[in-house]
Amino acid sequence: MNSQEEINDFVRDGYKQYLPHLTIDPVIFGYHDQQLKILLLKWIGYDGWGLPGGFIKRRESLSEAAHRILQDRTGLESVFLQQFQVFGDSPYRVKERSPGEVSGKYGFVVEDSWLFERTLSIGYFALVDYSKVTVTTDFFTNAHQWCDVNEVPALLFDQNEVVDKALITLRHQIYHQPIGYNLLPEKFTLPEIHKLYETILGKELDPRNFAKKLVVLGLIKKLDEQRAIGPHRSPYLYQFEKEAYEYALKHGIVHTY
Amino acid sequence: MNSQEEINDFVRDGYKQYLPHLTIDPVIFGYHDQQLKILLLKWIGYDGWGLPGGFIKRRESLSEAAHRILQDRTGLESVFLQQFQVFGDSPYRVKERSPGEVSGKYGFVVEDSWLFERTLSIGYFALVDYSKVTVTTDFFTNAHQWCDVNEVPALLFDQNEVVDKALITLRHQIYHQPIGYNLLPEKFTLPEIHKLYETILGKELDPRNFAKKLVVLGLIKKLDEQRAIGPHRSPYLYQFEKEAYEYALKHGIVHTY
Repeated sequence: MNSQEEINDFVRDGYKQYLPHLTIDPVIFGYHDQQLKILLLKWIGYDGWGLPGGFIKRRESLSEAAHRILQDRTGLESVFLQQFQVFGDSPYRVKERSPGEVSGKYGFVVEDSWLFERTLSIGYFALVDYSKVTVTTDFFTNAHQWCDVNEVPALLFDQNEVVDKALITLRHQIYHQPIGYNLLPEKFTLPEIHKLYETILGKELDPRNFAKKLVVLGLIKKLDEQRAIGPHRSPYLYQFEKEAYEYALKHGIVHTY
Repeated sequence: MNSQEEINDFVRDGYKQYLPHLTIDPVIFGYHDQQLKILLLKWIGYDGWGLPGGFIKRRESLSEAAHRILQDRTGLESVFLQQFQVFGDSPYRVKERSPGEVSGKYGFVVEDSWLFERTLSIGYFALVDYSKVTVTTDFFTNAHQWCDVNEVPALLFDQNEVVDKALITLRHQIYHQPIGYNLLPEKFTLPEIHKLYETILGKELDPRNFAKKLVVLGLIKKLDEQRAIGPHRSPYLYQFEKEAYEYALKHGIVHTY
């Protein structure tokens, strides 16, 4: 959707193809080199930063929609996207939108569009290695940034709340799910996973207790293998207990004790 | 909404008052005397059992809608309702509904209604003491039951999946949230909380390890107080660490270690 004609069609008749009243707004966390960031796009129509969101097609499933939107907006494919909350309480999510707000900057002004109706947002999140991602923008967005989670600017609508809740959920789930699975080598040292957890949780963790607890909780296991990193330094290697997580998630029993 | 005229208005013009495409479907778990049940209503229009669901008004917040729907359908007030998932993937949630399916049994037949459009469902759950609940039904429903979680019949649409996911979420969260808070006396014995947890988790738990773990996880604390229940029996009393939970939920740090 890139020509002016296609955009006009979308504004006027898009509700024939997409469900009104609902958007999907993914929060994409990016970890790399001890930094935790989120992906923001600059939305031309609002002249501000926001999440890479979009609408659900009338005949696609919710999960398909979430993945398509992310791919359309950012080029990201095959990411583990997790739904975490529907946002429908803030004033932005109860009232209708103003036409001027939406349409002015795209080169059209319409008095009435399905886009101005009340819209709830379904929040999803994912965690990726941002050094491996190439983001592409579309007609509605003209820039992107990976923004440090501690320096998020004022976002569109209630999206700062969406980001806050996504971060709380990520921090909660890091003790229960193999969220860090794709961010570390298959076999890693304790300092490596320790730094990953400190970065995601945004606080210091006692290294000895931290390791002990992850092993007791059944999240990681110590291997009978060491990595030689210097003449007198060869730390033991660890691995995620991925099967235990998957069992836990499926059966609702999170702790292995 | 109880007269035939009101119902006809709802079927024809309800979309002016309610958002189309979205329902709220609460799963109400009831615990009492070592039994875990869910609340089902008999929906006249479908001639089957289903959850006590409803639509969101155009100018009410999502949370207000969830509480209103529960109260309208069941008489339940001031319940801690927790959103857990949007359902939009099953075939029932992608296609439109058939008019005959919906309208036949209510005494009207219409060819076209907003009720037949594709509808996603927002799942909420709550846990109450069902012996303290008086359920009232409305025009759309003519019976209710508290059904054992192990004997749930075939429900409307994809609602068996909704119930399964609610149960998984409840079982997950029982280690992290004061879910049992309203189901036990303020001060309780270990056997009391042990039975509550066994019932909700649907499996036996080693009594000694169970208690030790709940204390280590910071969920409960031992009081310097005993309850006299017989000449030689006066077990120690325990209390939920409610403040620790609330801190954890707010800050995303679930474990107190």
